[in-house]
Amino acid sequence: MKIIEEKILREGKIINNDIIKVDSFLNHQIDVPLIHEFAQEVREWMAGRRVDKILTIEASGIAIAYAVAEQLGAIPLVFAKKSKSATVDDNVYKSTIKSFTRNVESEVTVAKPYLKEGERILIVDDFLAEGNAAFGLINICNQAKARVLGLAAVVEKRFQGGRERLEKEGYDVFAGASIKEFKDNVPIFY
Amino acid sequence: MKIIEEKILREGKIINNDIIKVDSFLNHQIDVPLIHEFAQEVREWMAGRRVDKILTIEASGIAIAYAVAEQLGAIPLVFAKKSKSATVDDNVYKSTIKSFTRNVESEVTVAKPYLKEGERILIVDDFLAEGNAAFGLINICNQAKARVLGLAAVVEKRFQGGRERLEKEGYDVFAGASIKEFKDNVPIFY
Repeated sequence: MKIIEEKILREGKIINNDIIKVDSFLNHQIDVPLIHEFAQEVREWMAGRRVDKILTIEASGIAIAYAVAEQLGAIPLVFAKKSKSATVDDNVYKSTIKSFTRNVESEVTVAKPYLKEGERILIVDDFLAEGNAAFGLINICNQAKARVLGLAAVVEKRFQGGRERLEKEGYDVFAGASIKEFKDNVPIFY
Repeated sequence: MKIIEEKILREGKIINNDIIKVDSFLNHQIDVPLIHEFAQEVREWMAGRRVDKILTIEASGIAIAYAVAEQLGAIPLVFAKKSKSATVDDNVYKSTIKSFTRNVESEVTVAKPYLKEGERILIVDDFLAEGNAAFGLINICNQAKARVLGLAAVVEKRFQGGRERLEKEGYDVFAGASIKEFKDNVPIFY
């Protein structure tokens, strides 16, 4: 999507040659028309397929997930919670996710009543890098015997392999903008 | 709003006689049509007044803030971040908020570029209880010399005084559902 690529070029800040900060429109301040257009593209991408529920992770995924859920017929969305310590609540599905940007492991949980056997789930997130968050959520869906259709992310850093890993396992992937590489501190898109 | 009151009666779980858990439609799973209708009501409430930006706190406020921002003309939204420790970044506005439900203090931050002098801000949140989160965000807006118009919350526990405190200081308050009290473990609405 041209609109996202232009926004990244104009406002993204590359850090360490593999992290790009987009706080001005995605991770702190949110550009509503941009997210709305992304959600419409996801709807076209999913045309003809039934989606029962959107799954994301707090916090940056939530606005995007809401926009997509609205476009797909006002279906429910669930956001996995990041818990600080091992949760004792046994009424949750848990998974451990390694954060690429911060190099820490965190446990995420979804309460069992909000994922049901047979539900058709679309995962939505702000970024797709190595795919660790996506696989953490897939793991949770597997525990619930829900079916993951695929993942839609606003920005994909394709050189980090997340898409490959997901597609290899049979999941569909959609990205609003696909970064091929950072060259001389400038993102190059596919 | 009838739809929210009914949802609370059907799905809310009262804990300790002053906390109500609404994870099934607001704080973990999100009921999109309900939030959409709330956002439309906020638009009517704000009719004729200019709002430049929506401000909320991660994580539960974000979906609601997005829906309201969309209704008010696709204006930007900003979510304050909860930081674990004292942030050294001096390019942020900070405020300390005492959480009613968890009885802990947490620091929230907004990066300075995302709140500007003179901007007309509407605060949006899931709950209004004692008003601590609202006043923390107002404090941040004051640092930025932005102007807070008021607060819109999906659920208000009016017996905890948040509305009174806010109105006394001249802020407008809108709630999707106003709980007067919990009586025999059932919420009574205004």
